[in-house]
Amino acid sequence: MKKRAKNKSTSQPNTSSCDWQATNRKSGALQAKPSKVKKTTNKSRVYKHKGNYTWKGIKTEAYKLTSGGWSKIIRRVLVGDGLKTKSHLRYFEIAPGGKSSFEKHRHEHVVIGIRGEGKVLLYKRYYKISFLDVVYISPNTPHQLLNPFDEPFGFLCVVSAKRDKPIVLS
Amino acid sequence: MKKRAKNKSTSQPNTSSCDWQATNRKSGALQAKPSKVKKTTNKSRVYKHKGNYTWKGIKTEAYKLTSGGWSKIIRRVLVGDGLKTKSHLRYFEIAPGGKSSFEKHRHEHVVIGIRGEGKVLLYKRYYKISFLDVVYISPNTPHQLLNPFDEPFGFLCVVSAKRDKPIVLS
Repeated sequence: MKKRAKNKSTSQPNTSSCDWQATNRKSGALQAKPSKVKKTTNKSRVYKHKGNYTWKGIKTEAYKLTSGGWSKIIRRVLVGDGLKTKSHLRYFEIAPGGKSSFEKHRHEHVVIGIRGEGKVLLYKRYYKISFLDVVYISPNTPHQLLNPFDEPFGFLCVVSAKRDKPIVLS
Repeated sequence: MKKRAKNKSTSQPNTSSCDWQATNRKSGALQAKPSKVKKTTNKSRVYKHKGNYTWKGIKTEAYKLTSGGWSKIIRRVLVGDGLKTKSHLRYFEIAPGGKSSFEKHRHEHVVIGIRGEGKVLLYKRYYKISFLDVVYISPNTPHQLLNPFDEPFGFLCVVSAKRDKPIVLS
């Protein structure tokens, strides 16, 4: 049970509703061309939850608005960062007032609410998402995740490693 | 947001650590040849958590030991049953004293502890799994999930829809 390689990148071949460009937290500069992706040999391992929706060995990524309306969101990539996995598992947390872009793409999402409450917009309808509510977002469904509440809204998101670029909708 | 088709089957093309033959809860008979799998057109939808690790519209499947040492486990397929999804999401609950078979296969697992505590065996080493601990089980890792504790151990399991048959280990 070795630790994961340190030389990892947050880049993905494509971006999705749950993907966007990372910022350098110190400079705030966008990593327009992320560093090389070093795919490691996959090792089974346990990512221990440290409390407060953080995990041992998993970094918190802060993001800036680049396009499409993402705001007030952090990401913690639990499974997939630097690994050749078929699915990726990420924890996202949207601060009060934050939201993802309204978009669609061919790849699917599975979202699992684990902290606080939020909303998901599917086509033109909003659904409240609470603890352990599960959302399946099928291919090409216009969707958006939002936090109109007063507490952080945290959720897990399962997505295929191979995914197409989202189309941001108005 | 239509409801899922009622004519669903629990069958999968292959079985995995988190798959096994369902029993008829009334008769206890094994569904040796499950009814036709009707793949529906995928619809986005929300599976509301009703409390106590049950979800609206999601049935609980009870299982009997068929081979390989599975015991005292129930399953709730949240995403994947009857759908053409790339990944499946299932909730499993192992009663105190229960366990999965010790096995390996080429497909991956991602396990997320959400109820109580349990253990995972990876190769020859046991790891305790608590709330929001995440386990990545890489291809061909011998593994087993166990509940040596006094309360139910519930976890989510992400697995690819296309998966190979597990090899049960001694």
